[in-house]
Amino acid sequence: MNKRRLLAILEYDGTEFEGFQTQKRGRTVQGELERGLHQITGETIRVVGAGRTDTGVHAAGQAVHFDTAWDRPDETLWRALNAVLPSDLAVRSLQAVCRDFSARYSAKSRAYQYTILNRPVRSPLLCRYALHVPEPLDEKMMDAAAHMLEGRHDFKAFGTPPRGTNTVREMYRAGVQRDGAIVRIDLEANAFLYRMVRRVVGTLLWVGKGETSPAEFGLVLENKRRGGAAVPPHGLCLVSVNYDLCNYRSEG
Amino acid sequence: MNKRRLLAILEYDGTEFEGFQTQKRGRTVQGELERGLHQITGETIRVVGAGRTDTGVHAAGQAVHFDTAWDRPDETLWRALNAVLPSDLAVRSLQAVCRDFSARYSAKSRAYQYTILNRPVRSPLLCRYALHVPEPLDEKMMDAAAHMLEGRHDFKAFGTPPRGTNTVREMYRAGVQRDGAIVRIDLEANAFLYRMVRRVVGTLLWVGKGETSPAEFGLVLENKRRGGAAVPPHGLCLVSVNYDLCNYRSEG
Repeated sequence: MNKRRLLAILEYDGTEFEGFQTQKRGRTVQGELERGLHQITGETIRVVGAGRTDTGVHAAGQAVHFDTAWDRPDETLWRALNAVLPSDLAVRSLQAVCRDFSARYSAKSRAYQYTILNRPVRSPLLCRYALHVPEPLDEKMMDAAAHMLEGRHDFKAFGTPPRGTNTVREMYRAGVQRDGAIVRIDLEANAFLYRMVRRVVGTLLWVGKGETSPAEFGLVLENKRRGGAAVPPHGLCLVSVNYDLCNYRSEG
Repeated sequence: MNKRRLLAILEYDGTEFEGFQTQKRGRTVQGELERGLHQITGETIRVVGAGRTDTGVHAAGQAVHFDTAWDRPDETLWRALNAVLPSDLAVRSLQAVCRDFSARYSAKSRAYQYTILNRPVRSPLLCRYALHVPEPLDEKMMDAAAHMLEGRHDFKAFGTPPRGTNTVREMYRAGVQRDGAIVRIDLEANAFLYRMVRRVVGTLLWVGKGETSPAEFGLVLENKRRGGAAVPPHGLCLVSVNYDLCNYRSEG
């Protein structure tokens, strides 16, 4: 049977998931997606994600690929999947790619956003998606420190690699912006180490509170000082995984 | 014992509440707030809200007043309340007002916002706070129709009053704006009839889908044609209740 490869872009609310990747126990994004694919196609399909997201981390644009013998229109599969998937998981788009494509290895970059609510009182309307920091944060100092992350660096101060020993990554974009009481931290890199975004944010919070200068932040990056602990997962969102899709056109 | 009157501005996620007002059964905003006030002050306090919100409706700025013999700083009460209230309810601010003030009768206006997600695919990250409408909406036509609501009108076509027979209200502001896939409907009036916002939005959706022209929307307002059904509560948020607070300074 001729199988085709499809790329799916996923959105999910991570609150009720034990992360992306299937484990022995617990409800996962991968598990729910594979169950939905089985329900629609009758096939046993294994999906490959661009990367894992931890328990509680959200995604607006996680990417996965999978192979299927599905020969009806992709739009039909897309609609049927969104009808059977639970309300906290949706397939934003589905498209055919060639067999060389890998959601994981073809990715050019991943973009994450961490959201902070910076006001004295907590917010019931934002508490699922933003970390509450009541102390005033200086977002301009945080932004200055964040820019030091840009470029090619050994990021071992901020995380351990999922396997192997290479801790060098290339950060394409790192910045901090305020919109009223909301402070957003945006990071885009070719890849990230385990918990790297949350440990970077934990250290940027020291800068925002004036406990650490941007220069001292640079010393953390150089692994000459210890950085901050990882912040909680609920403020984190995998915004997008980026590909040169013109290199991976479907043959079909 | 000398009691003082306090005005509290509340934020809540309506998902898990059976509305604002205490009923025989069910968890309500009023019930949780009164329980928190009792826990901190030891008094049995009855709060008066600016208006009821239905089951599932959210608030960023609901207003209530209550009387208390609390004689320590208001900031202490505010902090203690936010520490004991559940995560889906918070007191944004607390201030002393004079005994003539009523959260309900002193209100100059109420502002509501209804949020629609207008894209083909539903959103797990917005599903608690926005109605998903997959069909394309023409927000400019909706905005043109909404402006017809501005001014003093008999709004009986869109709702029944909570008591009495006066269905005349004054709409200060009515408009529709798009920000990407998000369409927001803003209404501000001196007061609203029961389910009025949700029935106005239901009828504006007809206009957005091209089923009803703005002129025909005008006929609905004149009660010469039937309007649309009320849309679901989860897209609705009570944004603010507005007062001339300089008229209600605390004597103390």
